[in-house]
Amino acid sequence: MKNCTIGAILLPVFCVFTNAQSLKSPDGKFEMNFQLKQGVPYYNLTYNKTPVIEDSRLGLRLFNNNTVQFAPEIRKPEDVQYDLSDRFTITAEKRDAKKETWQPVLGEKKNYINHYNELAITLNQASTDRHIIIRFRLFDDGLGFRYEFPQQKNLNYFIIKEEDTEFDFPTDMKAWWIVADYDSQEYPSQTTKISEIPARWSYGVDKHSSQTLVKDAVQSPLMLKKEGKDPLYMNIAEAAVLNYPASNLEVDIKNFKFKTHLTPDKNGAKGYIQTSSVTPWRTVIVSPKAEVVLDSKMLFNLNEPTRYKDTSYIHPTKYMGVWWEMIIGKSQWAYGEPKTNVHIDGTDFTKLIPNGKHGANNIKVKEYIDFAAENGFNGLLVEGWNIGWEDWIGHSKEFVFDFTTPYPDFDIEKLNEYAHSKGIKLIMHHETSGSATNYERWADKAFQLMNQYGYDAVKTGYVGDIIPRSEHHFSQWMINHFYRIAEKANEYKIMVNSHESVRPGGESRTYPNWVSAESARGTEHEAFLGNNPDHQTILPFTRWMGGSMDYTPGIFQTRLDYYFPGDKRFVKTTLAKQLALYVVMYMPVQMAADLPENYRKHMDAFQFIKDVAADWDDTKILSAEPGDYIITARKAKGTENWFVGGITDENKRSYTVDFSFLDKDRTYEATFYEDGKDADYISNPQSYRIYKKLINSKSKINFNMARSGGFAVSVKPVK
Amino acid sequence: MKNCTIGAILLPVFCVFTNAQSLKSPDGKFEMNFQLKQGVPYYNLTYNKTPVIEDSRLGLRLFNNNTVQFAPEIRKPEDVQYDLSDRFTITAEKRDAKKETWQPVLGEKKNYINHYNELAITLNQASTDRHIIIRFRLFDDGLGFRYEFPQQKNLNYFIIKEEDTEFDFPTDMKAWWIVADYDSQEYPSQTTKISEIPARWSYGVDKHSSQTLVKDAVQSPLMLKKEGKDPLYMNIAEAAVLNYPASNLEVDIKNFKFKTHLTPDKNGAKGYIQTSSVTPWRTVIVSPKAEVVLDSKMLFNLNEPTRYKDTSYIHPTKYMGVWWEMIIGKSQWAYGEPKTNVHIDGTDFTKLIPNGKHGANNIKVKEYIDFAAENGFNGLLVEGWNIGWEDWIGHSKEFVFDFTTPYPDFDIEKLNEYAHSKGIKLIMHHETSGSATNYERWADKAFQLMNQYGYDAVKTGYVGDIIPRSEHHFSQWMINHFYRIAEKANEYKIMVNSHESVRPGGESRTYPNWVSAESARGTEHEAFLGNNPDHQTILPFTRWMGGSMDYTPGIFQTRLDYYFPGDKRFVKTTLAKQLALYVVMYMPVQMAADLPENYRKHMDAFQFIKDVAADWDDTKILSAEPGDYIITARKAKGTENWFVGGITDENKRSYTVDFSFLDKDRTYEATFYEDGKDADYISNPQSYRIYKKLINSKSKINFNMARSGGFAVSVKPVK
Ligand SMILES: [Ca+2]
Ligand SMILES: [Ca+2]
Repeated sequence: MKNCTIGAILLPVFCVFTNAQSLKSPDGKFEMNFQLKQGVPYYNLTYNKTPVIEDSRLGLRLFNNNTVQFAPEIRKPEDVQYDLSDRFTITAEKRDAKKETWQPVLGEKKNYINHYNELAITLNQASTDRHIIIRFRLFDDGLGFRYEFPQQKNLNYFIIKEEDTEFDFPTDMKAWWIVADYDSQEYPSQTTKISEIPARWSYGVDKHSSQTLVKDAVQSPLMLKKEGKDPLYMNIAEAAVLNYPASNLEVDIKNFKFKTHLTPDKNGAKGYIQTSSVTPWRTVIVSPKAEVVLDSKMLFNLNEPTRYKDTSYIHPTKYMGVWWEMIIGKSQWAYGEPKTNVHIDGTDFTKLIPNGKHGANNIKVKEYIDFAAENGFNGLLVEGWNIGWEDWIGHSKEFVFDFTTPYPDFDIEKLNEYAHSKGIKLIMHHETSGSATNYERWADKAFQLMNQYGYDAVKTGYVGDIIPRSEHHFSQWMINHFYRIAEKANEYKIMVNSHESVRPGGESRTYPNWVSAESARGTEHEAFLGNNPDHQTILPFTRWMGGSMDYTPGIFQTRLDYYFPGDKRFVKTTLAKQLALYVVMYMPVQMAADLPENYRKHMDAFQFIKDVAADWDDTKILSAEPGDYIITARKAKGTENWFVGGITDENKRSYTVDFSFLDKDRTYEATFYEDGKDADYISNPQSYRIYKKLINSKSKINFNMARSGGFAVSVKPVK
Repeated sequence: MKNCTIGAILLPVFCVFTNAQSLKSPDGKFEMNFQLKQGVPYYNLTYNKTPVIEDSRLGLRLFNNNTVQFAPEIRKPEDVQYDLSDRFTITAEKRDAKKETWQPVLGEKKNYINHYNELAITLNQASTDRHIIIRFRLFDDGLGFRYEFPQQKNLNYFIIKEEDTEFDFPTDMKAWWIVADYDSQEYPSQTTKISEIPARWSYGVDKHSSQTLVKDAVQSPLMLKKEGKDPLYMNIAEAAVLNYPASNLEVDIKNFKFKTHLTPDKNGAKGYIQTSSVTPWRTVIVSPKAEVVLDSKMLFNLNEPTRYKDTSYIHPTKYMGVWWEMIIGKSQWAYGEPKTNVHIDGTDFTKLIPNGKHGANNIKVKEYIDFAAENGFNGLLVEGWNIGWEDWIGHSKEFVFDFTTPYPDFDIEKLNEYAHSKGIKLIMHHETSGSATNYERWADKAFQLMNQYGYDAVKTGYVGDIIPRSEHHFSQWMINHFYRIAEKANEYKIMVNSHESVRPGGESRTYPNWVSAESARGTEHEAFLGNNPDHQTILPFTRWMGGSMDYTPGIFQTRLDYYFPGDKRFVKTTLAKQLALYVVMYMPVQMAADLPENYRKHMDAFQFIKDVAADWDDTKILSAEPGDYIITARKAKGTENWFVGGITDENKRSYTVDFSFLDKDRTYEATFYEDGKDADYISNPQSYRIYKKLINSKSKINFNMARSGGFAVSVKPVK
């Protein structure tokens, strides 16, 4: 609220604002209150008048002032006089509201609704003659806010020492979290109370190719649940993380409070900012229903519409890959003996002694093409096609890969011709080994090669420590790198599916050719240290909140002793659960990751993977509880076909699907894929049963899910 | 020496070497002795049986071992067990010799002679099953040696913690040095005893745009003189610094010893090495005559012949520039108000308020073209032509410059047309502000633009802290950057003249399109804190040893109060000395740096700059003493014309030139440019006299040089 005195004509309006403002959500259930306490900004949030977030501090600390040179300055101690965290007065407020419907290029629904009330508060710091804006958007599913730095006389360039945004919860809550790290997101989910996080933190750590852990902190997105008689589900995340590092969350177990912890570069700098500039949005999604959290499109809504002129080349992809056999150790990426010291600009790769296990060879790739084509896939990923794999990891090699030169046994021209003749596009693979500078230098030539041979999609990878050696995977420079590559790929009409890249925050609205990303612990870890049975019931609440994941499901041969007698590794799900993942997990880029030989043994079950859609007109989260189960129904793009998937954690469960979401005037033929009666993810994962049935909108069908089991249904209207 | 036992057929030869080897120079005057003392390698050097370098240690310390991953490993303490510095035995020695004559593309002489005896010693470290080679080459003017790391089972990848090569001198000596720094070479020369370096070190420091000083250490090349009745001049430098950082020298004042100190990245890593690999050559040039040191081509000889297929586009360049007027503050690089916050991808530069002082405008550039063309120059540098200068420095801006978009008042097409119509080529300017990543991304487009408009030379600049922010100007990554740019420029047939780049070590033999570099304190500093009167008598003994410098001489209007009444700055030479610099300083890229208006007032003196050659068939160092004077005669390429230049320090001197180097059968017309009788670099710098005279090989002409004065002579055969 403000009191303004209008002076004489031509004089400015002088306003005195009270130190508190409030904002309500369109449905009136949420209220956000902003206030200054002794010049320090705080916000809180209530839902149905119940405190969700208590007064929580806002602000940023900077390195020194903005008039001195930067790089010397980050060697100096910070100067608190220049922090953007206190000594503020409110000098303006601006309110706005929006309700728009927009269409994602690829998405879970035909229309996404962006509906919010907005409050933008201008904070003036008289002592430094600077002002910033904090912009709040309150939706019916929660709050988003960010800092904005208008260009002005005394605010042009600065380096962020830390962003101190807090989320202070009134009570202890259940939390689904992974350990904070500047370089890896591929940690197993932990489920504890907030108050238990530090004590349990080290249980969440395992060894990765590149990691820089932040002790006792956790990653964003973070899923929370206030348990008890009025449960409330909450999700803390960030949206539109552009030209800014990704954030972690420090935990304060006495106050049940989290504080933003940005990813620094190796100078300790957390963002080199030139105004005008904005931070990512900090988001809190809140609902009494877990399903509403899963269904939230808030992170996408907080991103800008795309500026791409042409998005027609972006399409859903169902693909297979010469990949899982390398992951499990049956074949290899390298052509010569791995651990051979090679120079991409010096070694004659035709003279290497072949190791005899190179996966990306002409014969094998043709076999995969044949199988993928026979079964209606449109893409085939081939990893290990290009020179440099012999010693690609762990040596801080900058010039590690050549992105245009195939190994001697990979005939790029002939294989692409063959693939195209069968209706398959090969999917390019660009592993960078973390050497982003090398990849940037190759990018144009690499994408030109793709255009030449008709590749329209690339899987990128960033396994290993980053070069430039000042950077982390999630520091500002690398965030910019990822979007630079997305934009360059768009110039060549190429879709990007990135691995080991930063977790998304809805940016696919703006960069729709960045169609998917890994950025979490995917199926590959089943062949390393394993994923817990509840892993897939948590990821949609965390990693998936900001965009699709390339989880690479579809493993039918879950026990690896099939390949290697005595091998104790196994994929910790039933076969039926693998099918359900194609519905539960939103994946416009959908891999059937297992080997053709394994699918051939279960062509009846494989039929579901062949049938399931990858792009959707509608999505219904039927029932969900993080860490326990998720049941989802989706309607395939441009059709009346529905697909339903259900998964459970390490506990058996039964669930009755109410098909009332179906069109009331139609009859459908449903095909059910269910765990067998004796199915069990450890002792009998391949036990399943398949049956068909006519159903309609009144049908209610009960499913029994085995331990780490699931079910899948494909539903087609009867003509 | 070795004793070999030849075993049965098919068995290897077993050799036992003594722990000491020696090598003599072709003329027998130098002897290098190598030995292991308890497994630690040492070398020494004698000249005429007098010790020049006493037993000095060799070797490298590494981070940890070579089997572990790199980046984590540089966070760990070093593991001495893996150092390549001790526990060695000699397992092979190989001797070789060479005498070749080769022709530099541009050079001081038509032929360079490469004449040495070589000894390569293989050192085995049994405890780690590794071996390295130390290769020594002994020339008639001194010693070069390097480490070589053959690819082998246990030596494939390592990170250098430090190279510990020592130069241990028997006595205290006079030293000409600048302070060690990882980012700047533009320090004033200091002249002290070795033993006085630490005490005087801080006198050598002034403020630079980017600096990371190494306390008490000095830079290489370092000039030394053993004074007394048998004086000996010595120069420590390095050659072929490729894929390796540049080095500084730590001083041990008790032992008169220097130790190599490599430039690290910000992780402290001093070189990421993959075998096979070699280090730069460490060089010691030694002679009783200073002139022989100046004349040495050892650093060039230690580089590899070029692999460029075409060097025909590389030519000597005499150029003027829209430059000095910005340096002194008369005009500006920026078009809009400097310190305006601009975004190269967002700001509309046509809408900026012009500051009215932008140098690179159509009218001024045409005036420079006219004057340069009238006076026979072939190039005109224009700085400040491209967008981004408003806030280019000090903000750690990565996306700081656009290298293809001119300011609104610079019509690139028309100006190039106009220049070409007058026989002038514009010289491109690429200031990077230290943002090497930005420049690499632009490089192709920038060079394509140059090809499009007919530019064949670029002046690059690296003012400011380096991006990637892990790097220093002289760390391994940046060294690779500089050569990457040179090679890319060669693809476009473009010559490079780099500023703020690494000091050269003879690499122009391999990369002949990298025609010149600044890489030391040039004329521009006369407009900042000033150069000492002896500065130009020292640089040829230090900075110039490895390649030409773009010193940008030719300032006739030495007093800056001419422009700005009361201004105390002045160029600390006489006008005649400025002329002499064109001969004393080897510059195939030769700038006449002053403004046309100043040359117009002294067209008689300017005639020497118009006449003087920039490429040479022969060079005679007539007389020289570092810090005091240099007198040099050079014969212009493909002609019988000679040019002589002489300079002195803050002391008046007279010198009699003996013209016996002239052809005995010819008569020559000589034009003499001499300090006036009352000339003085402070009180009367523009006093000079010019006269002509017929001379022959018997002529001996005396010159009087004023304080910080000099003389120049142009000598042409009479037809
Ligand atoms: Ca559970
Ligand atoms: Ca002197």
